[in-house]
Amino acid sequence: MPFHFAVNTEDKTSFARSGTLEINGNVVQTPVFMPVGTRGSVKSLTSEDLYEIGYNLILGNTYHLYLKPGTDVLDHFGGLKNFMSYQRALLTDSGGFQVFSLSGLFKFEDDGVRFQSHIDGSRHKFTPESVIDVQRSIGSDIMMVLDDCAPYGSSVERLKESLERTHRWAKISVDYWLERPGDQSLFGIVQGGTKADLRLESLQYLQSLPFPGIALGGLSVGEPRPEYVRILEAVAPHLDPARPHYLMGVGTVVDILDGVKNGIDMFDCVLPTRNARNGQVFTSYGKVNLRNESHRLSTQPIDPECQCKVCNNYSLGYLRHLHKVKELSAFSLSTYHNLYFMKKFMSELRESIENKEFSSFSEHWKKLYAS
Amino acid sequence: MPFHFAVNTEDKTSFARSGTLEINGNVVQTPVFMPVGTRGSVKSLTSEDLYEIGYNLILGNTYHLYLKPGTDVLDHFGGLKNFMSYQRALLTDSGGFQVFSLSGLFKFEDDGVRFQSHIDGSRHKFTPESVIDVQRSIGSDIMMVLDDCAPYGSSVERLKESLERTHRWAKISVDYWLERPGDQSLFGIVQGGTKADLRLESLQYLQSLPFPGIALGGLSVGEPRPEYVRILEAVAPHLDPARPHYLMGVGTVVDILDGVKNGIDMFDCVLPTRNARNGQVFTSYGKVNLRNESHRLSTQPIDPECQCKVCNNYSLGYLRHLHKVKELSAFSLSTYHNLYFMKKFMSELRESIENKEFSSFSEHWKKLYAS
Repeated sequence: MPFHFAVNTEDKTSFARSGTLEINGNVVQTPVFMPVGTRGSVKSLTSEDLYEIGYNLILGNTYHLYLKPGTDVLDHFGGLKNFMSYQRALLTDSGGFQVFSLSGLFKFEDDGVRFQSHIDGSRHKFTPESVIDVQRSIGSDIMMVLDDCAPYGSSVERLKESLERTHRWAKISVDYWLERPGDQSLFGIVQGGTKADLRLESLQYLQSLPFPGIALGGLSVGEPRPEYVRILEAVAPHLDPARPHYLMGVGTVVDILDGVKNGIDMFDCVLPTRNARNGQVFTSYGKVNLRNESHRLSTQPIDPECQCKVCNNYSLGYLRHLHKVKELSAFSLSTYHNLYFMKKFMSELRESIENKEFSSFSEHWKKLYAS
Repeated sequence: MPFHFAVNTEDKTSFARSGTLEINGNVVQTPVFMPVGTRGSVKSLTSEDLYEIGYNLILGNTYHLYLKPGTDVLDHFGGLKNFMSYQRALLTDSGGFQVFSLSGLFKFEDDGVRFQSHIDGSRHKFTPESVIDVQRSIGSDIMMVLDDCAPYGSSVERLKESLERTHRWAKISVDYWLERPGDQSLFGIVQGGTKADLRLESLQYLQSLPFPGIALGGLSVGEPRPEYVRILEAVAPHLDPARPHYLMGVGTVVDILDGVKNGIDMFDCVLPTRNARNGQVFTSYGKVNLRNESHRLSTQPIDPECQCKVCNNYSLGYLRHLHKVKELSAFSLSTYHNLYFMKKFMSELRESIENKEFSSFSEHWKKLYAS
């Protein structure tokens, strides 16, 4: 079976749950965080690094991979996993979100969206069917449908338009996928902005379709935190418990905790990798800015409680120096640490659910990562 | 003993020789190539990478380390090896060469050279004694004297001035070093540009001083290849065979072969690492430009004969993609391969000397790397 999801433990005080995803032979414990490998590489790391840290599910970006290296290259190599020598599980977005970030360079049509490449201005079109074809060339285990993610602050009219388009395309997508599912699964995406009624309408429709998993899109796109939490809380009781729930593009430690509390099983975000490159690392005692003058003479590791090879080998003083002089190893070492941290954090989060300690676990980490 | 050099095999057809350097417990087979870790990092790699490839002697740049992180940080950490977590052998240049590259920003004085930092314009002075003190803070196993490296094309008057200054400072250096040698050795540097008579005069004077090793400076600084070879050939018969001979800032495969032929035991150069970052990698069949369109669909490794982890795991097609989209892993993977190549190349070069095949070995590689 290409895809199987089972809930292991349900938290009694919230919608939090731990579970197991089996994806084409890869066993993934949930809640899970997926590092982002935008263009066939988790920035600054190698595929061996991902194995070493223990990531057996990562995300690739369809928009970027479609432009470079392009589907002809991906087809020739037999998919992205062979291309980047990463033989674990892979999820791809539909490319829609990136297209909608090209302000002024995209235009909706009934059956898809036209856009211009941010690289060379060349003209392209994505349709619900074509992005599935691209994801087939990429060979991801989990594909996402093309949706219409309206920006934060959109009018109710725009959000209704987004829902109509998202739902229409979802139906086209699921039909197209089921003609030839192979070993690739397809997730649907719920939209509706910060309008709870629209979110529930969207959820109900998406869950009426035979998607193996349900994603929430259009959250953590600029809305204030209370709005984010309010929508999660509105949706949580209505999520189909039999399917995995994926909150796209999230996130921070605090946002992940609120997601898990509201039934989310899967997360992805560039934050741990992007922040690492900017010198911000995560520790058991909070966020640390490696460029800080106070670390100049520190012989301590980033986090004395961390067992990663960076913390085992290098000092804050050295890492600060590497960041200050912009050595390339600053980026890879900091990224390695942050992804190791996220892996351990998610593992402890799962344990807390299984040990009936999720609430205190969440409180502890929210205090450390409040700001 | 902090430093011991022994010749193992002498080539009968040239001045080539293989030997063993013992540097504070680190055994280094010569001829040896040293990767350059300018600012406490071999660009894009970690110290574990260097261990993995098998480098137990690398070079650090005194000028850069003096400016950042600075001697107070290095003193606090107990030297660069502790700072960068590299516990093998370390050689440092004197900083002079970098200062003389700051055109217009340096000025000779009798007892040293004044210069302005390329980072912030701050004013500093290096003297023969002060650069030894800086190298003591760095804690290198092999230190280099401050010399006056006149640019290629200098007049005979300027070259004579360079020799007078270089020799005067060499004597001051060796005296200052011997007051408190500790476990750090000091090498002298021969100057003289492309004037054979000045080179021999300089060599004779330098070898009259108790330096454990003799370096040739001011070569491979822009002179035509025939000039480079002519000077090596003029110097070779007069090099003290009991001491190791270090050719600074060299080089290419072809330049190393000419160096070895003329009795050189040690080399350093940024070329294998810098070229890797620009997409040029070295192979058993010549140089390869990873950005080349022809590699787009290649599932072959950089070099089918190479056993490095990059060649074992990644294809030319993937590495080309990483370079084209400027992924950070392009730099580290290519650098790793090139340093692995250089390690293997030097190892085979030593074997060729020991097997009395240096001449044919040299011919084979010179053909492959002629252009």
